[in-house]
Amino acid sequence: MKFFVTGAGGFIGSNLVDRLLSEGHEVVGYDNFATGFRRFLEGALANPRFTLVERDLLSPVGIAEAMRGTEVVFHLAANADVRFGTEAPRRDLEQNTMVTFNVLEAMRAEGVKRIAFSSTGSIYGEAAQIPTPEDAPFPIQTSLYGASKLGAEGFIAAYAEGFGFQAHIFRFVSILGERYTHGHVFDFVRALRRDPTRLSVLGNGKQRKSYLYVQDCIDAMLLCLEKATDKVNVLNLGTDAYCEVLDSVGWISERLGVTPTISLTGGDRGWIGDNPFIFLETQKVRALGWEPRLSIRQGVETTVDYLLANPWVLEARP
Amino acid sequence: MKFFVTGAGGFIGSNLVDRLLSEGHEVVGYDNFATGFRRFLEGALANPRFTLVERDLLSPVGIAEAMRGTEVVFHLAANADVRFGTEAPRRDLEQNTMVTFNVLEAMRAEGVKRIAFSSTGSIYGEAAQIPTPEDAPFPIQTSLYGASKLGAEGFIAAYAEGFGFQAHIFRFVSILGERYTHGHVFDFVRALRRDPTRLSVLGNGKQRKSYLYVQDCIDAMLLCLEKATDKVNVLNLGTDAYCEVLDSVGWISERLGVTPTISLTGGDRGWIGDNPFIFLETQKVRALGWEPRLSIRQGVETTVDYLLANPWVLEARP
Repeated sequence: MKFFVTGAGGFIGSNLVDRLLSEGHEVVGYDNFATGFRRFLEGALANPRFTLVERDLLSPVGIAEAMRGTEVVFHLAANADVRFGTEAPRRDLEQNTMVTFNVLEAMRAEGVKRIAFSSTGSIYGEAAQIPTPEDAPFPIQTSLYGASKLGAEGFIAAYAEGFGFQAHIFRFVSILGERYTHGHVFDFVRALRRDPTRLSVLGNGKQRKSYLYVQDCIDAMLLCLEKATDKVNVLNLGTDAYCEVLDSVGWISERLGVTPTISLTGGDRGWIGDNPFIFLETQKVRALGWEPRLSIRQGVETTVDYLLANPWVLEARP
Repeated sequence: MKFFVTGAGGFIGSNLVDRLLSEGHEVVGYDNFATGFRRFLEGALANPRFTLVERDLLSPVGIAEAMRGTEVVFHLAANADVRFGTEAPRRDLEQNTMVTFNVLEAMRAEGVKRIAFSSTGSIYGEAAQIPTPEDAPFPIQTSLYGASKLGAEGFIAAYAEGFGFQAHIFRFVSILGERYTHGHVFDFVRALRRDPTRLSVLGNGKQRKSYLYVQDCIDAMLLCLEKATDKVNVLNLGTDAYCEVLDSVGWISERLGVTPTISLTGGDRGWIGDNPFIFLETQKVRALGWEPRLSIRQGVETTVDYLLANPWVLEARP
């Protein structure tokens, strides 16, 4: 099969590209390297079945042409940062909602009919039901990030209805693993390398979050593409567990061999729109035969090991 | 109070402007007259408490300046046409999602903290629960229009959370009454004036829809602004009844004194994304003390009478 992967140079995107190539597929990757890294694609670029197009999806120019002849679009390009939404709201509108629209229009122009999309558990806001199923009560958004992904999901479903697409919408918990480039493990490892004696944690440290290992995430997406056959398939992806932020701090510190003094900024939220409890019901994807191989703790440890082995990733951001 | 009304020259907008002025308020109206009519604002323009700004909301330029000193924003400007979404998908993205974002950014710039928004029952897609409550299961979008309003709702709620706004999000059924300029009553009256002997109806005529009279809609919005005090208030607005398309055809024909032969295009949907059954649970707004004064039939008849008395409205569209 021939796949089109947006955000191909990103954390999940580059892992997916490698997986698809290893399974013998052809892949066209699209990335502007705003947050992705060319270095993540070193292996892929050596493979004749991989083509890289370096462009910005916010401009519709060139997307359809690059997509020509592909069969499935994995739309992973995004502003994936939920925390800084209020500092730059337009970024979420543009990078998540408008870019998704441009991808859909290119698909329509080229007659590409299948799209897999990386949505988010943040879309449930502060869910009334936990663990939160895909058909939870209509949520109220609490973050620009969630809002922008909600808009993107809506357009994808409307295109499926209006233009005969098939859509797989994946609502992720936070993803961990090799090539992880932002989020709490990144922040804590970086801070503890600079000063292993102390660590500042946003909120009261009791925020409960769920995480999933990137290879488990990719397994799930590829399985769903094969086995979930509705016009619009919405699937939560996560482990059937959660941890508190301070649990994760403990695992990271242990892995690093440090014993920092923890200071808490206080409050039950780390930032505006922080969700104090994210835990998704994953019965739907499990019923298709998937289960994650790594626990949350193993995912955190794998990520720490990756960052220690690849310090350039920690140093690549300001 | 001083209000800012987008879509001030539109069907609902111009009725709201007149109401607010009649209650002694100041109003700044914003409209590009793409689908609204200056003629609807003749009365308002003669009132010194009304200011009209003729601009396009798709450009952020000028919105904040026009909004300065107002206290509540009624954001009614929209592409309100659900039927032709697949012919021009970008119109929904731009006119509904992006324009709403521009309005929110202007509010943030000017420190205006209250927004009332005209969303839609179409946002529930083909609802699993009928009558459909505000916290119905997370819906799958079936129209570009619904998707674009969903994105707008999401951004409004995220701004409320992120920037301390208060939001009133109203999910309307179709609205009827004076200054009604598009929709099935408009189409049928126009067609029957041209040829009273026959009428073509999209679908099987059994589509079940709910309607609300515009003055009842305005009563409800103003009451909710006063009585619904959450940060984000989501409220369905509709009558506690529905009718079939052929019921409405019968009332329209009777009012016009014609007996057309009806031909049906067939199928349970009039067009792609047509929802065969829209009926909203309105317990939440009723609990605040509101109830509609006109039945669906009375709303249809009032609309027919208005169109007959104002044939220029029927002739203003191609």
